[in-house]
Amino acid sequence: MFAAASDNAEPKRRVAESLVKEMTDAEKEEFNALPVLEIEDMEQVNYLHTIAEGWAYPLKRFMNEQEFLESMNMNTVTDADGKKHILSVPITHHITAAQKEAMKDHKRIALKCSKISDDVLAVIEEPEFFDNRKEEICTKTFGTRSVLHPKIERIEEQGEFLISGKSMRFTQHIQFGDGMDQYRLTPQQIYDIAEERGADAVYAFQVRNPLHNGHCLLLKDTREQLIKQGYKNPILLLHPLGGWMKDDDVPLDYRMRQHQALLDDGTFIPEHTILAIWPSPMYYSGPNEVLWHASSRVNAGITHFITGRDPAGVKHPEIDDVDLYDHWHGQKLLISQQDLLNGVQVMPFKVAAYNKVNKKMEFFGVPGGAPKEDFDFISGSKMRKMAKEGTEQPEGFMSPAGWEILCEYYQSL
Amino acid sequence: MFAAASDNAEPKRRVAESLVKEMTDAEKEEFNALPVLEIEDMEQVNYLHTIAEGWAYPLKRFMNEQEFLESMNMNTVTDADGKKHILSVPITHHITAAQKEAMKDHKRIALKCSKISDDVLAVIEEPEFFDNRKEEICTKTFGTRSVLHPKIERIEEQGEFLISGKSMRFTQHIQFGDGMDQYRLTPQQIYDIAEERGADAVYAFQVRNPLHNGHCLLLKDTREQLIKQGYKNPILLLHPLGGWMKDDDVPLDYRMRQHQALLDDGTFIPEHTILAIWPSPMYYSGPNEVLWHASSRVNAGITHFITGRDPAGVKHPEIDDVDLYDHWHGQKLLISQQDLLNGVQVMPFKVAAYNKVNKKMEFFGVPGGAPKEDFDFISGSKMRKMAKEGTEQPEGFMSPAGWEILCEYYQSL
Repeated sequence: MFAAASDNAEPKRRVAESLVKEMTDAEKEEFNALPVLEIEDMEQVNYLHTIAEGWAYPLKRFMNEQEFLESMNMNTVTDADGKKHILSVPITHHITAAQKEAMKDHKRIALKCSKISDDVLAVIEEPEFFDNRKEEICTKTFGTRSVLHPKIERIEEQGEFLISGKSMRFTQHIQFGDGMDQYRLTPQQIYDIAEERGADAVYAFQVRNPLHNGHCLLLKDTREQLIKQGYKNPILLLHPLGGWMKDDDVPLDYRMRQHQALLDDGTFIPEHTILAIWPSPMYYSGPNEVLWHASSRVNAGITHFITGRDPAGVKHPEIDDVDLYDHWHGQKLLISQQDLLNGVQVMPFKVAAYNKVNKKMEFFGVPGGAPKEDFDFISGSKMRKMAKEGTEQPEGFMSPAGWEILCEYYQSL
Repeated sequence: MFAAASDNAEPKRRVAESLVKEMTDAEKEEFNALPVLEIEDMEQVNYLHTIAEGWAYPLKRFMNEQEFLESMNMNTVTDADGKKHILSVPITHHITAAQKEAMKDHKRIALKCSKISDDVLAVIEEPEFFDNRKEEICTKTFGTRSVLHPKIERIEEQGEFLISGKSMRFTQHIQFGDGMDQYRLTPQQIYDIAEERGADAVYAFQVRNPLHNGHCLLLKDTREQLIKQGYKNPILLLHPLGGWMKDDDVPLDYRMRQHQALLDDGTFIPEHTILAIWPSPMYYSGPNEVLWHASSRVNAGITHFITGRDPAGVKHPEIDDVDLYDHWHGQKLLISQQDLLNGVQVMPFKVAAYNKVNKKMEFFGVPGGAPKEDFDFISGSKMRKMAKEGTEQPEGFMSPAGWEILCEYYQSL
């Protein structure tokens, strides 16, 4: 369907095809005989997975030097037809000087990760090597001098070189065997489910936290807004991030149980919702990263993307009580780049907070809304403290089934 | 004419109009009565001049927060029609908290610089103020953590706020009274001269150094290449940077005398050359800055832009003998963004060096060229030493009249 109400009927929604082409038995034998680059770090598997399934379209390999250069400077890359696409984050594979020396004369290199598979995950054809310009990529991506930022710390630990190649062959739909593979839908699978349900709008929500009733209010309100615009059957793509996160974020397994509980108890209406895992790691790069959060989902044929206050933000690593990014720069930047999102509409959202009088989450600071003094802004740290201590949550803050899972997690620490 | 040989006949060359509208006597009186923000620093006059004459099109004021945000993250800004233009450097005006406090309630603010004029240079209408996010703009623009970079040092000294406004009225074609105002041509003036001469191609060369015969070789070779492509009358826009530079660069007055000497002695053919001053300050931001060097000249209706090795590069401020930028990233990046340059063709250039055997500057490393051992790479520091000591230059290195001016400068220090 995917047309209907919007007067912006074209361009057509994009669906990126998976780049995975599974191996024949003969190929399996052939690829298993190639020199192997073992991937030690699951974050690098996240990247490989992200590229392989089409989430980084038009990228078809770990970034080569030209793609790295364009992305680092312009937050875009150029496709084979000369068209620019937003791609604002480095999606690279790093190696040490010793690994480069060992690999430099090979025409093909097999990538393996023995933690998840005995077989080859991908083959790099005609490898290319270039400098991992860590200071430049970190400063241009994150906008800070600090090396204590959680993602910068990881980049600074990388090898001195980056590897790409003339092309890459992706040989597996990566499976993690962690009981959550059924949520790891490809862009095409998400598109197909939306089509089967007769969706005429798909609005995506990036999330890496447990969902409270403020989120639910927002997501229901978005559906209502879209229906007011003339859409008949808007579907929510609830799309938690599945890759690497900093240590104090809630792990994926607890988050998926929490989200599923909210579907099971009717907080979200299952027919109006697709719950799927997005394979990318986090960057915590604020305005830079919200471009990635949106542009990647464009590949699943979404029509709308929701974004709010301080997306992908983080505290300044070296200045107390200062947020690294301006709270509204992410949203403002994304809206300004909407023309590069293949027709997807950006929906800026309002802040929801806990109304102590009405005992529920409500939009804050909207015309006709409750006065400021009625609201309590329940911070992440306050929520963690309550969950850790098993305090009863404020009535109406979160679905009771979801709260229980959150308490279980924090009490397990 | 500006069409001819190129099969890429459209889009039409752009000529940015000057934004200056000189004051009537009544306006002069009116504007002189407004609250005044005095510009202490000539670099800020450079910015004002750059915007006023159309060199920063589509910018029509000091960047406001949205323009700052887009430029900082995307190296582009969006015009009123929603079209993106390359604008890769911050062009802002900074103020202190005290200045902001004094100015915040005024509807109009007059900008003056008593060093060059008793009259108002510009009026800011409906002022807006926003945070001067120094760490973010410096890291994203320059790609380094160092605060010892020559331009970053200046930004770090700026006030805590940036000022823009709903609009700006530019009231003067800025004159510096330094004997070089006749070279300060507007984009329209440059376009008109090229038209008068019947140019069918205008190729621009950004320069902030004295010109040796390697430059001359390159610029003549470019003309020959364009003629081979079918152009009948390619004209060189020799376009030295006129704004702030670091202390050890050769000052503008000596450079202009040196360039003029090369026109006077026939090293450059006057009918094939337009010598004009470009008002921007330097940034020393490498690949980021070459975008600015090219995009700004697009506004003068050029058809081609030449760029070479390590444009706008600088040593890493804190790592010995390491260049801050990859030598070829600037050229590669600019070529990749050519579609955003309104049809202007980027011409990558070859390295020229001194051939000791032939006693002249020649292209290095070209097919059929002389072997490496015949070449001497005469570095800037070697050249400075020779000029300082009055050593005779290697035969054929630079026009004698130009060399004399260079010696005069270095011996004056």
